[in-house]
Amino acid sequence: MSHPVSPLAPKSVPALPPVAGVRLATAEAGIRYKGRTDVLFALLDEGTQAAGVFTRSRCPSAAVDWCRAHLGGGTARALVVNSGIANAFTGLKGRQATELTAQIAAKAAGCGPHEVMLASTGVIGEPLDATKFEGVLADCAARAESGRWLNAARAIMTTDTFPKVATRVAEIGGVRVILNGMAKGAGMIAPDMATMLSFCFTDAAIPAPVLSELLAAGAAQSFNCCTVDGDTSTSDTLLLFATGKAGHKPVTRADDPALAGFRAALDNLLADLAQQVARDGEGARKFVTVRVRGAESDASAHRIAMSIANSPLVKTAVAGEDANWGRVVMAVGKAGEPADRDRLAIWFGDIRVACEGARDPAYDEAAASAVMKKDEVTITVDLGLGQGSARVWTCDLTKAYVEINGDYRS
Amino acid sequence: MSHPVSPLAPKSVPALPPVAGVRLATAEAGIRYKGRTDVLFALLDEGTQAAGVFTRSRCPSAAVDWCRAHLGGGTARALVVNSGIANAFTGLKGRQATELTAQIAAKAAGCGPHEVMLASTGVIGEPLDATKFEGVLADCAARAESGRWLNAARAIMTTDTFPKVATRVAEIGGVRVILNGMAKGAGMIAPDMATMLSFCFTDAAIPAPVLSELLAAGAAQSFNCCTVDGDTSTSDTLLLFATGKAGHKPVTRADDPALAGFRAALDNLLADLAQQVARDGEGARKFVTVRVRGAESDASAHRIAMSIANSPLVKTAVAGEDANWGRVVMAVGKAGEPADRDRLAIWFGDIRVACEGARDPAYDEAAASAVMKKDEVTITVDLGLGQGSARVWTCDLTKAYVEINGDYRS
Repeated sequence: MSHPVSPLAPKSVPALPPVAGVRLATAEAGIRYKGRTDVLFALLDEGTQAAGVFTRSRCPSAAVDWCRAHLGGGTARALVVNSGIANAFTGLKGRQATELTAQIAAKAAGCGPHEVMLASTGVIGEPLDATKFEGVLADCAARAESGRWLNAARAIMTTDTFPKVATRVAEIGGVRVILNGMAKGAGMIAPDMATMLSFCFTDAAIPAPVLSELLAAGAAQSFNCCTVDGDTSTSDTLLLFATGKAGHKPVTRADDPALAGFRAALDNLLADLAQQVARDGEGARKFVTVRVRGAESDASAHRIAMSIANSPLVKTAVAGEDANWGRVVMAVGKAGEPADRDRLAIWFGDIRVACEGARDPAYDEAAASAVMKKDEVTITVDLGLGQGSARVWTCDLTKAYVEINGDYRS
Repeated sequence: MSHPVSPLAPKSVPALPPVAGVRLATAEAGIRYKGRTDVLFALLDEGTQAAGVFTRSRCPSAAVDWCRAHLGGGTARALVVNSGIANAFTGLKGRQATELTAQIAAKAAGCGPHEVMLASTGVIGEPLDATKFEGVLADCAARAESGRWLNAARAIMTTDTFPKVATRVAEIGGVRVILNGMAKGAGMIAPDMATMLSFCFTDAAIPAPVLSELLAAGAAQSFNCCTVDGDTSTSDTLLLFATGKAGHKPVTRADDPALAGFRAALDNLLADLAQQVARDGEGARKFVTVRVRGAESDASAHRIAMSIANSPLVKTAVAGEDANWGRVVMAVGKAGEPADRDRLAIWFGDIRVACEGARDPAYDEAAASAVMKKDEVTITVDLGLGQGSARVWTCDLTKAYVEINGDYRS
């Protein structure tokens, strides 16, 4: 099953520069797909620091368990990602598959198995035959190069309609550092589910605990503010590797002023990738930004924004190009957060459609309708209660979503 | 926009007997719809006790505000329900409309405005012109009869595809009492949203505080265990009126053993109506029962069951007749409740598809597939942790849902 490229895909793909200390290779291991690459092997120079953020699912995949167990050391020498099989809900066999994969990769990379990070995406509940990595990873290690970023992003796709990459530069202590990232988003091959994977690489020299702090903060404002259907995957994984090859003065604290530019670049990179994930949401025809302000706290604003972004009725209204503020009111009301109906104001784009708990007296149907016809729609809600704010990215809910996820048999 | 009757509609409609002390009439007030009834006026004899359960939305409709404010007395003499306009998110005008409606109804019924209960369903954000009730309600009062239950259920429909009624009998202290109920479910006229209203009537003599306790308990196991799309309405209203005409010995406590039969009949009536709402979910082609057991508590089981029932990926899988247990695992994992992936067991119908955190070794694709082809599908999850259990009713997510809610302009 293949789908046309999302109309919301970025108009151009950036060229990613090499990141010193990172080499990539992809291969066809035949895990599930035929005639396309399905394995990414990333080799990381000695001393590479690593940080990760993972799914909050109580039923995580075996690869997520593996990374959580082995990321404590803060270093990594290799990353193996496969598409086709998620190795989730696979019990003991799943754990054995991660162990074998790490052993094969460690041998190929010349490191210990605990220095190998793993991620898998694809079918849930099917066993992953890790013996398929035998030979493949050694060959990858021999071929690995510092370019190939777009190939890497392609190898980790499931039914993503375009590869997702982004790059940024920053300075640390006057030294230029590079940040490259890739992501995969909502993909579906029966009986898969949406899975979000993202891998970022930098040549900055930042110790793992600091890296971890920066990554958690960045994820909170990017991937954790991105939703297609509200269905959190068993396999969500975001990893950041820092090879330390840029040669700047070492930093030891996340609040070091020298990191300001890097932090901004990282946040921006993650936001770019998260937006690309929403833009490739299954069946998406509209990219939607939901902004909530005037809430009692940022956390409260975030929960209200997610309630709006995940509401099937709001999402189908956007698909139908209908400036339906009644459904936005509904989604605010059901969020369970402090809200005063009679203070609510709502905008679609720049058009205020409602204020003080009722339709804006100046409401202009034609103007609101014009906003809804665009590819990108911003819904803004002001609760009029406090200073809390949040921003979430999502997409509309179309018949194509139901088709992709319902019109097939596993 | 009219849709064919849901294939999940009950095969027959019960005949509802009169409830002593209750008279009904319907009318065409021309509030929004043309050529159909849109007002229900129920007249209740003096002494009628009343209890209600309302939406937990923080942005409730004006009618919900009105009922909450006036139900405290525990008595009611009339009920006015209109379809077409929800009178929600209408600010000061909305409050004025409820006041005027209650005044007109009070005059027609010969009672005080505070003894009139109100409910409205339909478009959100549009003002309700309550002057349209002038004359109409007085005429209704003159015509009101003790039959007409199906007509009453029709007058409160929006885009429900069938009227929803149910009846039960019980005994209190050896005296037969009647319970009649009606409900409306997921309806949609641009720019509406799903709104659930239900009104139940009995000739039992039960004081309001006891009635309230029974109703809250019944709602918790019926309407609060029913979901179409997870989008809680601004207007959800469940009212129970008890005229006291049956002539049994009065009861004063909810735990009076004399109420056991009544309580069971009420729970059963509410469950019947709640199931009818799920069966008429927008675009529904499958009626789904989700059962969760082995959870740490009943509350935890309920949250997991709702997470499964509201998951777009689970619902589209059911629409696609796909026994996709991977998505059930995902929905368990994202619920945020205690769960141990490696103890999970999952059934579709009687077919166990997964146990101990992996595919059931005896899994038979053909048998599971046969279960999924039926109109009614039960998904059962055993968490293997404790004694908590829950049961939720829902429906599948089809392209028709997106069509109904997206393919129009307000």
